[in-house]
Amino acid sequence: MAQQLQLSIGEDELKKLNDALEHGVSSELRTMLNTLPPADTAHLLESSPPKLRSLLWRLVDREQEGDVLQELSEEVRQFFLDQMNIAELKAITEGQDVDDIADLLQQLPDTITRQVLDSMNSQDRQRVEAVLAYPEDSAGGLMNTDTITVRPNNTVDVVLRYLRRHEGIPDTTDSLLVVNRRDEYIGRLPLTLLLTTEPSATVREVMLTDLDPIPADMEDTQVAQLFERQDLLSAPVVNETGKLLGRITIDDVVDVIREEAEHSMMSMAGLDDDEDTFAPALRTARRRAVWLGFNLITAFIAASVIGLFQETIDKVVALAVLMPIVAGMGGNAGSQALTLVIRGMALGQISKTNLKWLLSRELAAGFLNGLLWATLVAAIAWVWFDDPVISLVIACAMVINLSVAVITGAALPVLLKSMNIDPALAGSIILTTVSDVVGFFSFLGLATIFYG
Amino acid sequence: MAQQLQLSIGEDELKKLNDALEHGVSSELRTMLNTLPPADTAHLLESSPPKLRSLLWRLVDREQEGDVLQELSEEVRQFFLDQMNIAELKAITEGQDVDDIADLLQQLPDTITRQVLDSMNSQDRQRVEAVLAYPEDSAGGLMNTDTITVRPNNTVDVVLRYLRRHEGIPDTTDSLLVVNRRDEYIGRLPLTLLLTTEPSATVREVMLTDLDPIPADMEDTQVAQLFERQDLLSAPVVNETGKLLGRITIDDVVDVIREEAEHSMMSMAGLDDDEDTFAPALRTARRRAVWLGFNLITAFIAASVIGLFQETIDKVVALAVLMPIVAGMGGNAGSQALTLVIRGMALGQISKTNLKWLLSRELAAGFLNGLLWATLVAAIAWVWFDDPVISLVIACAMVINLSVAVITGAALPVLLKSMNIDPALAGSIILTTVSDVVGFFSFLGLATIFYG
Repeated sequence: MAQQLQLSIGEDELKKLNDALEHGVSSELRTMLNTLPPADTAHLLESSPPKLRSLLWRLVDREQEGDVLQELSEEVRQFFLDQMNIAELKAITEGQDVDDIADLLQQLPDTITRQVLDSMNSQDRQRVEAVLAYPEDSAGGLMNTDTITVRPNNTVDVVLRYLRRHEGIPDTTDSLLVVNRRDEYIGRLPLTLLLTTEPSATVREVMLTDLDPIPADMEDTQVAQLFERQDLLSAPVVNETGKLLGRITIDDVVDVIREEAEHSMMSMAGLDDDEDTFAPALRTARRRAVWLGFNLITAFIAASVIGLFQETIDKVVALAVLMPIVAGMGGNAGSQALTLVIRGMALGQISKTNLKWLLSRELAAGFLNGLLWATLVAAIAWVWFDDPVISLVIACAMVINLSVAVITGAALPVLLKSMNIDPALAGSIILTTVSDVVGFFSFLGLATIFYG
Repeated sequence: MAQQLQLSIGEDELKKLNDALEHGVSSELRTMLNTLPPADTAHLLESSPPKLRSLLWRLVDREQEGDVLQELSEEVRQFFLDQMNIAELKAITEGQDVDDIADLLQQLPDTITRQVLDSMNSQDRQRVEAVLAYPEDSAGGLMNTDTITVRPNNTVDVVLRYLRRHEGIPDTTDSLLVVNRRDEYIGRLPLTLLLTTEPSATVREVMLTDLDPIPADMEDTQVAQLFERQDLLSAPVVNETGKLLGRITIDDVVDVIREEAEHSMMSMAGLDDDEDTFAPALRTARRRAVWLGFNLITAFIAASVIGLFQETIDKVVALAVLMPIVAGMGGNAGSQALTLVIRGMALGQISKTNLKWLLSRELAAGFLNGLLWATLVAAIAWVWFDDPVISLVIACAMVINLSVAVITGAALPVLLKSMNIDPALAGSIILTTVSDVVGFFSFLGLATIFYG
């Protein structure tokens, strides 16, 4: 981990920063901080506890602030944005990409957004407003409007001369986009092709039409899948009539992919994927309390099931010793199925046509593991308590609970998704409830019958 | 989920494929399948249960097989590779990128790799061997050797004419790489710059030197961080003397990012990140058995702690009812801390300098949530069992267990990583052991004292 940090900032540098802070050598520190690339400054801020973070932020040069803010995660960025006044906000949007400005503005209250927009020149304002018109998590929200477009009737030579007159082409441009007179996307002209093709050819002759433009209302996760499957570097975005609005570039898609993949893991522990690692204790406690509260309800449901069988436990106290094994193993087996299906859904692998097969496979695998571990646990229980009845009871309960838990784990995500509930967030809580209830009920219930 | 699939293959198309299969219309199906892009065919194979998968694979045209294999996940690819003979293996490597061929070969037994290499022409063989010389998960293993290099003394005009004589530039080329006479990397010339700069300028005058080349032995996750932070599309790879070996492109980095992000989630449930969603039941059961076995050991440790207090439970059976609440809430609180720190480590945010702050924040947050929920649980327990003693005991036990669990969850990943153990895989098992043992021991131990 230390090594990963070293990669860009360096343990040594971080230590120097800390030393400098402790000894109040803030001018030296200021210089050091402002020579770092903005992404590294942002990383340093995100890796700092609250006090150090505020102190470092005050040392960032005004001109650098906008670039650094872009690189911060949403929660940390919000914290700094909240402290800025209108003049500062206007200043930091200058020189930023249109999609990045839109990202910033989406985090501000509407009245402030309006004021910042009003301060821009009309061309910039229109561009930003075009992006703001779409939800943040859509193709339109991801796109940039700095596209270079050419007409199909131009020759390659004309295009080359046109580009040479240009001040500069945006960094991430890999293709020029070809549009007709109505500004509708009709093809793309990769720079690699432009450089190797006959100058006298027309754009129409050499352009590629292999790529369907992306509708502006497509979800960002779908955009990410398209980029991944087709190894795209950029793709055109169009409105519902086919008019070209802008382009999405891979660097923004990479963020979507990372967030999407992290989202499931964080949600399964009831955390927000944008969670600030170094949030203060009180904020951390408050946020986590909600999820813990839901888990407490689960725990009380499980406890009340045990409560039904107090008489039986009073008779055979060994039941109390063994009962967490049945519940726990069910929960573990179920969470494997849950995780696999959540991942499969994120990859778009699971549909109605293969769900039935998947559920029966899970049931078979769960039953097999149930049998295997039930046998072992039964043998140990027999030896431990010298009681063949408890050994039989726990074996049956384990086979039942593992089978039910894997089926629940596999079916839950699909069910929850169809009800528009986040499977990762709700899935693990519901699964625990099921595996606890079924585990305690089958174990103690069977015991009540056998010892009754 | 249905929508995500629709994106590229379409529910309707999938249904048609299934109908076609059921009615044996295989020639129609073959045509349909082979007009899909290879990535979509691969996706269809990965989304199919074993029998359907084998059947579909037989319908894929020989010339398409190599492209489709590239797009498959490792486990599914291995399955098909195992069934191929040398001639088929040689055939599928033809026309593939050097890094992709290396990926395939790395999955084959050494003797077969040798035979396939021997069948290549010497230039291709050398290129593939250059990549094979580095581990799969290093910059060298990720790189491609299809770089276009230019010399610093050439003029832009010469470069442009040189490119125009070229058959074609590799798709993902965004920059030409500038090397000196000893083939050492000295700078890069983005195509965007090449198109806008004065033709009479020399390469040396216009080239960018802002990017440090990547050492071939850098870990792939570090490469991914570099690409993410600096929004790179490609980067040069050099050996220890600075000689240019090849370049890494963003499309390969995207796979690393996706895999890394998925890895933690899958590992926390004891799953392999390359796990085939549609693996047969027996294979699934066998794989999961190992992790369940480790969890069973945990469960027995917890059970033996309860076993120490059988007498106390015999006296106050309500303890058996409430004890899972203490253990479970500790486990939940701990897994929040564990997940947050694992994510923070993956992002390179956590180092020795901020770990102490993080641990004390976790302790504070855990203690606060412990107090909050202990109060509520104590109140409910008092009413339920009409017993102020049990209410006091469970409150104390919960505060203790939640505090210990969050500290354990936060410290474990760092500790395990320093011992070179995967934190996500081992972390959740060890955490469960700790929260169960501390939960049961503090609750039943305190009860033994108070009721003793």
